[in-house]
Amino acid sequence: MNGAEALVETMLASDVSVCFANPGTSEMHFVAALDTHPEMRCILCLFEGGVTGAADGYARMSGNVAGTLLHLGPGFGNGWANLHNARKGHSGIVNIVGDHAGYHLKHDAPLQADLDGVVASVSQWVRRATDSSTVAGAGADAIRVARGGQIATVILPADCAWGESGAGALTALPPVAKHRPDADRVAASAEALTLPGAALLVSGPGLYGQGAKLAGQIAARTGCRLLAPFFAPRIALGENAVAFEMLPYSPDHTIEFLSDLSRIVLVGEDPPVNFFAYPGKPSTPDPAGCVLDRLCYSDWDTMWTLQTMAEAVGVDGSEHVSRIKGKKPALETGSLTSEGIGRCLASAIPDGAVMVNEAVTAGPGIWPHVNFAASHDRLNNTGGSIGQCLPNALGASVACPDRPVFAVSGDGSAMYQLQCLWTAAREKMNITFVIIANRGYQILHAELQAQGAPKPGRNARAMFDIEDPLLDWVALAKGHGVPAVRADSEEKFAEALEQAARTDGPFLIEAPI
Amino acid sequence: MNGAEALVETMLASDVSVCFANPGTSEMHFVAALDTHPEMRCILCLFEGGVTGAADGYARMSGNVAGTLLHLGPGFGNGWANLHNARKGHSGIVNIVGDHAGYHLKHDAPLQADLDGVVASVSQWVRRATDSSTVAGAGADAIRVARGGQIATVILPADCAWGESGAGALTALPPVAKHRPDADRVAASAEALTLPGAALLVSGPGLYGQGAKLAGQIAARTGCRLLAPFFAPRIALGENAVAFEMLPYSPDHTIEFLSDLSRIVLVGEDPPVNFFAYPGKPSTPDPAGCVLDRLCYSDWDTMWTLQTMAEAVGVDGSEHVSRIKGKKPALETGSLTSEGIGRCLASAIPDGAVMVNEAVTAGPGIWPHVNFAASHDRLNNTGGSIGQCLPNALGASVACPDRPVFAVSGDGSAMYQLQCLWTAAREKMNITFVIIANRGYQILHAELQAQGAPKPGRNARAMFDIEDPLLDWVALAKGHGVPAVRADSEEKFAEALEQAARTDGPFLIEAPI
Repeated sequence: MNGAEALVETMLASDVSVCFANPGTSEMHFVAALDTHPEMRCILCLFEGGVTGAADGYARMSGNVAGTLLHLGPGFGNGWANLHNARKGHSGIVNIVGDHAGYHLKHDAPLQADLDGVVASVSQWVRRATDSSTVAGAGADAIRVARGGQIATVILPADCAWGESGAGALTALPPVAKHRPDADRVAASAEALTLPGAALLVSGPGLYGQGAKLAGQIAARTGCRLLAPFFAPRIALGENAVAFEMLPYSPDHTIEFLSDLSRIVLVGEDPPVNFFAYPGKPSTPDPAGCVLDRLCYSDWDTMWTLQTMAEAVGVDGSEHVSRIKGKKPALETGSLTSEGIGRCLASAIPDGAVMVNEAVTAGPGIWPHVNFAASHDRLNNTGGSIGQCLPNALGASVACPDRPVFAVSGDGSAMYQLQCLWTAAREKMNITFVIIANRGYQILHAELQAQGAPKPGRNARAMFDIEDPLLDWVALAKGHGVPAVRADSEEKFAEALEQAARTDGPFLIEAPI
Repeated sequence: MNGAEALVETMLASDVSVCFANPGTSEMHFVAALDTHPEMRCILCLFEGGVTGAADGYARMSGNVAGTLLHLGPGFGNGWANLHNARKGHSGIVNIVGDHAGYHLKHDAPLQADLDGVVASVSQWVRRATDSSTVAGAGADAIRVARGGQIATVILPADCAWGESGAGALTALPPVAKHRPDADRVAASAEALTLPGAALLVSGPGLYGQGAKLAGQIAARTGCRLLAPFFAPRIALGENAVAFEMLPYSPDHTIEFLSDLSRIVLVGEDPPVNFFAYPGKPSTPDPAGCVLDRLCYSDWDTMWTLQTMAEAVGVDGSEHVSRIKGKKPALETGSLTSEGIGRCLASAIPDGAVMVNEAVTAGPGIWPHVNFAASHDRLNNTGGSIGQCLPNALGASVACPDRPVFAVSGDGSAMYQLQCLWTAAREKMNITFVIIANRGYQILHAELQAQGAPKPGRNARAMFDIEDPLLDWVALAKGHGVPAVRADSEEKFAEALEQAARTDGPFLIEAPI
């Protein structure tokens, strides 16, 4: 068994059975090893930003580690931005990135670069295989790290892949136990939630499933406000979901939103910070004098902390947890608006849908409606790097093939990784892509103003507006093998959603607003 | 004047008047400064790989430094791969990459990352502005470095952009003088070219214009073989161009090609190396015992070295330099082949065309014909990172608006940066995109075999082949606002080239082979 085969068998033995990939020559022995192990599902993306973003979406919805296969420094560089998003969302990913054979490095071949440097700049753990016998161990250790919600990268020189491995495959250990706050501290923080002006701000696994239930019970028992971050990696919403108040995006709105608080207990989440700095404004939105109780950092043991808090405040199952009561909005007619998109989605999405959100400026119109739709999960952009939505949708669909996925993205963001449409078509994924065609980076118009700059002139408009020519998303979808329609009124949009539901495989709706 | 204005005025005062851009919120003051300086041409690309690759193409064809504007770590990461290509080709680029305001960094906002790390992993020079008064100096120093053919990056925190600059704009100094070999050594190396089995291998500015002429004269005077690398950044070809023998791609062919040589003098080029290592094969293709005379490294003073060599061997203008004699191939009919594409292009391209090459497996069919066409320049992929062709074509067209540009790319490569089509349409660039639709990463089939692996199975084919669904390039082009046709026979392809020539602005031809 060569190094590549030992690595593939280590991955399979450790329940890493999906590999999003865009390989090159230096990874040919790994490809050959994948070939002899058809139980590994290999999914090609036509650009590496799709590879890494799909791995992120898979990790968020499956809770399992996703594998990626990348080609040297440039392949890794292309995947960097969505690894950044994954890192911010604590998704566990194992990257296998090929390199030249060790003896070839001294010649500085064209593809040679500072691979270790670019890898280290976004990975939380890196190991370069030094000979064939170290490959399986590197893979097993990487999987262990990734199981803890981190980005782990194995650099696999070609000669380590093709040489005899000796020891053969390994099985990854369970993740290192996550840090837990002191139990007395947990009890004190939980108790303080009964004070006036207290809130519990939760993220990570505290926003869905058992974690969200515990959070809801704690809030019901203590009477505190229950908050979720704007950029929650994954949150359960819709009918019967625990009712979290979601932080707004803009600093001014967030300051207002938090203004009555004197204490925020943070579990699985770091202190609120404005997305950007603005001249003359503070960096953080919490009110002066508000106690920020960092009880459980975002990479600590959120579930144990919530469980321990619940016990401390006497949660016994009798709490009246505040839950979302679904309501289907009445549809309107006429020109399509972000609110109209929200109404139609809220009315159409089935129970168990997965909503992937990168509707930057249209979001405030859409989500207040969808939040009250059928029960669903929502994935948000976690690291602010645009181009996360389409790739995340691929990964979510692989993780949950029986759940319909809706990728709701602005056109500027969607253009970043539009090649994902092809992968959705090839893999016949049940994804409805909703592309909100507002013809530009509309957020930047608002941001220019927020920065105190004057009205945009010629150069600014040339960099903010995506028109002249208009993008034709129906044609772009067709080019990638995805059927599509344009829906420029609310009634057409509602009809398009019905058509998407009837269509096997992916479907795209261009939604000009 | 704030820091951003001082930087824009420094760039303009230093003849950096084109800025390829994809900005975000942290760059809003730089955008505002660009707005008040309409003499800076700002060109939006819908993904940063287009931004950096366009800057590379501009630098290659103009000889001037190009500017880029990128948004924090993710924006830089997205542009990494084409900066790698630019670095390998010694293109001078100044990147302006925004960062959070310094006082905001301690809060670890979502977009915060190891920006310095990812920047350093591909830039040859980095400066982080520390306050507003340092911004103009950082810009001027960066431009000086870039003028020497390097990647220079200025990290511009938002508060350094919006704060008062104090000193105002600067003008960049001329580049630091490039290293020159000892003149006696040059004379000795030149003299040795008269020995049997000698070759002169040239790259950089030695492959076009006065440099190529000098190289041709030296070869004529000494009787040596005159070689050019396979991945020449820019080479003059076609009618009356100096006749270089171009190295092949594959190791076996290169070994054969160099087998009669006992001495290779390297000017502006590093020693030949195989693109990848292969089990049981040497890393380098030069024959055992062949002297590799590294006279002038790729980043040294190539023009001075060639001039000094020419003087040493008595070049006086009377040499019969071997030049390409143009020949128009007779067109054939029937199914389109790579040779047919070559015949049609060779017959159609006008004097002064710029050919941008990323035809990986189809190249050997195409270029042997085009080499004998009308006088033209060719740009090649320099760093092996695919997705260079379309962006380079944008930059070449900005540098040479009166010269028709032909971007000849395989479909797999073209998909990497297909968003460039939109920029070509918006800027009404005279670019003909020829997309060779061979339905996959055909090179990988050959490479799998060369690596000694068995025939591709299900997983390998799933990662090599881009079919099911087929990409529809006519639709993809239409989606980006570029008119297009599919040409599946040689006669249709010839007709499509005529249609492209009659069309104002860009045109795309899908060429299935």
